[in-house]
Amino acid sequence: MRFSGADSQYRYKKVEQELSKHIDAGDLVPGDKLPSLRQMSSTLQVSISTISHAYEELEKRGLIESRPRSGYFVRSEFRRIPTPEIKITQKIEPRAVTKNKLIQTALETVGNKDLLPLGVVCPCNELLPTRQLAKIMCSVIRDNPMETAGYEMIHGNLDLRRHIAFRSVDCGSNITADELLITTGAMEALYISLRTLTRPGDLVLIQSPSYYCFLQLVENLGLRAIEIPSCPDKGINPDRVAEITKTFDIKACIFSANFNNPDGSLTSDRRKQEIVKILAQNRIPLVEDDVYGDIYFGDSRPRTFKSYDRDGRVLLCSSFSKTIAPGYRVGWLAPGRYLEKALEIKATTNVSCVAPTQMAIARYLRDTFYDKHLKKLRFAMKEQMNKMRTEIGLSFPEGTKVTNPKGGSVLWVELPENIDGVELFFKAREEGIGIVPGIVFSPQDVFSNYIRLSSGSLWSAEIQTGVRRLAELAAGL
Amino acid sequence: MRFSGADSQYRYKKVEQELSKHIDAGDLVPGDKLPSLRQMSSTLQVSISTISHAYEELEKRGLIESRPRSGYFVRSEFRRIPTPEIKITQKIEPRAVTKNKLIQTALETVGNKDLLPLGVVCPCNELLPTRQLAKIMCSVIRDNPMETAGYEMIHGNLDLRRHIAFRSVDCGSNITADELLITTGAMEALYISLRTLTRPGDLVLIQSPSYYCFLQLVENLGLRAIEIPSCPDKGINPDRVAEITKTFDIKACIFSANFNNPDGSLTSDRRKQEIVKILAQNRIPLVEDDVYGDIYFGDSRPRTFKSYDRDGRVLLCSSFSKTIAPGYRVGWLAPGRYLEKALEIKATTNVSCVAPTQMAIARYLRDTFYDKHLKKLRFAMKEQMNKMRTEIGLSFPEGTKVTNPKGGSVLWVELPENIDGVELFFKAREEGIGIVPGIVFSPQDVFSNYIRLSSGSLWSAEIQTGVRRLAELAAGL
Repeated sequence: MRFSGADSQYRYKKVEQELSKHIDAGDLVPGDKLPSLRQMSSTLQVSISTISHAYEELEKRGLIESRPRSGYFVRSEFRRIPTPEIKITQKIEPRAVTKNKLIQTALETVGNKDLLPLGVVCPCNELLPTRQLAKIMCSVIRDNPMETAGYEMIHGNLDLRRHIAFRSVDCGSNITADELLITTGAMEALYISLRTLTRPGDLVLIQSPSYYCFLQLVENLGLRAIEIPSCPDKGINPDRVAEITKTFDIKACIFSANFNNPDGSLTSDRRKQEIVKILAQNRIPLVEDDVYGDIYFGDSRPRTFKSYDRDGRVLLCSSFSKTIAPGYRVGWLAPGRYLEKALEIKATTNVSCVAPTQMAIARYLRDTFYDKHLKKLRFAMKEQMNKMRTEIGLSFPEGTKVTNPKGGSVLWVELPENIDGVELFFKAREEGIGIVPGIVFSPQDVFSNYIRLSSGSLWSAEIQTGVRRLAELAAGL
Repeated sequence: MRFSGADSQYRYKKVEQELSKHIDAGDLVPGDKLPSLRQMSSTLQVSISTISHAYEELEKRGLIESRPRSGYFVRSEFRRIPTPEIKITQKIEPRAVTKNKLIQTALETVGNKDLLPLGVVCPCNELLPTRQLAKIMCSVIRDNPMETAGYEMIHGNLDLRRHIAFRSVDCGSNITADELLITTGAMEALYISLRTLTRPGDLVLIQSPSYYCFLQLVENLGLRAIEIPSCPDKGINPDRVAEITKTFDIKACIFSANFNNPDGSLTSDRRKQEIVKILAQNRIPLVEDDVYGDIYFGDSRPRTFKSYDRDGRVLLCSSFSKTIAPGYRVGWLAPGRYLEKALEIKATTNVSCVAPTQMAIARYLRDTFYDKHLKKLRFAMKEQMNKMRTEIGLSFPEGTKVTNPKGGSVLWVELPENIDGVELFFKAREEGIGIVPGIVFSPQDVFSNYIRLSSGSLWSAEIQTGVRRLAELAAGL
């Protein structure tokens, strides 16, 4: 882990982040002079060498430049990049989802390890506790050769459920082990929820943009979707939810309040509470995707919809895929009042989850400092995202907008209107760069000039070059 | 493993099995005198002590008795037990499946480790290569900490698929690694197949009796089922398949030719070939469950339907749950011409399978003598099943019939007509014995006087006592 060194090393990063935030926010504009090393050192009460180190890093990132005998200045090429606005052109009407073919192509690109991973949302291996987990898995297997080889309960491993239940307090939920069902990743939790709640032809309410795998599931379950615009800054608007639930017969909502993939939007806790209330009044179940909830950049964890649930109509879906190990496929579902039906769907889908991976994650949670790991992970994810935002601001064509998420690992980039995201996707793939075209995140074609970039990988010269090359390709279209 | 000792130890088992087969077949009837130790030793060309050992075992099992100064005789209490016949009372008509509640109760019993496992179809841990697999898992994890933690491809691990493809030659199939999709057990393979082939309201053709989890899946996918009687001796009759496919609009068949759960029936290779031909002519896909195919008691492995498939309409489902480790949940699907759709269903159900368990099974297949393990497993399963059949013959009420399967791990017991299987199921559960009532194996109520017993566990005094107690309970009803 890069930030686990001495405190002083950590300190310059803090300074660097603080300054880049101000540049990014427009507090410091191109041409502005930065305080001298001595001034800054005195203001922040850190050593001159720490400040000097931070300035060097900002210079490397292209945010500031040193002018001989004059000091440091915000680079004149640096351009504040606005965030995309809500898409008001979207039509509110039920529609079948029919983008499967393009989604499949995008999905294959995501899994392709030969491509630069700007399409992969998971944090890279270096940021995950991979070696520690490997050790734990070995000792779990050695200690329990029989149990790890035998069937687990349909509900999933009890120790694991206890740890998840205990941790649910962090996000304001109060779930017991008995109310949980372990799933093969959060995707399976979502799948079980929709199979539990809907029948083909039913109408579901989704956020726009929404994660394309959800759309694909909606499509192949034969459901129809109605979209509610998600605002990159504020997430889902409860008033819109109230309007739509009045007008249409919605069988379930699929919402991601905490750093929605792809627009990274955070729906505030107040709004969450209101939405849960509106849905409860209308007896509409809400399937909540919270896989990014633990990767917040602010001071405290945002709450879940589930934490405001009083009548068991919120089905919380989450996993350890973004924080411990994607390949272990350990997720969970807190299906509220729908537990019995959810267990039946689980049993007839694949009986129960893999035993040894559940036991390993349970022991990882018991024996390690998971919260300490999460703290480091959040710090790294925030820094990587900032660097990528900066690079996009420096290199992408005039008119480009990019989100400024408060958590998660993806950036939602709005290109100038004449640039086609799908064309850019194919061009980038030819050059070995994996991205996801915006169009796959909605059943409508409203996001044709958007792309999603992931900042899950350690920032490196290679990634930087990739982003720059992508910018050149976009400019050429 | 109990049979891995010296050759001589193995030899007395052979003698014991041979003799019990003849008693069972009625070649030796109650009261018949067995050849003397000396005669038998000379006939079989093994030592007197081997014969003596075999006779002692048969005596312990209650098959023969020694009379002072007269030698060994087939016990007069021993009764040849007939096999159940085909149920001709079943109505051939489509029907919704609605036994979910009872199935759920039965399923919970199966997973309950406090019960005597006469309901569990998997071979017990002692018969599976549990310790060897644990070692292999540890070395796979140590050698690949990164790969085991990361996402696998949607198709599944390539090495694993190569080994499965290579082994498919054994059952006459000729599948390449590219044509395979790794699944979370065979249940997921079946689930993906049905999601791929059908829509709610569609009609599927099933065997009667059929594995209750399949019926539950058929129910919760909103399908209707039509049943074709499965004959305990001969399996599925191609003529009946031809008739039904002429009369009804069948969207898919779900057949298990090799030791169908619960009746253990084996549909001959000739019949398989004919069935595949009939279905191909009618363009009806066939979902094949072959999880017991490797546990044959005869001289050679029965073929699969898939091995006769010429136009890609057979979807082969199988797993390592019955032969290596149920808790690893490693199964596979060879979906023929439906691969693309099957991959889409897999991706939207749970993205891909758990990585480390796939890699461990792949290395197990690469580095060990899997075929040697299977040989031992088959021998043990056959012996356990014979002992259980004998015990049923000795202790169950007059009029009881039991199957004589040529493979697998379950016995299908037809009780006298006045005995209710569900009542026996609940009575047995009260006394800590887990069995499955016959009624859950069909959407109709035709199997109300049947139960399924599993012989997957090592034969022991505890199991024997359990079977005897069950017989007493049955007699008391």
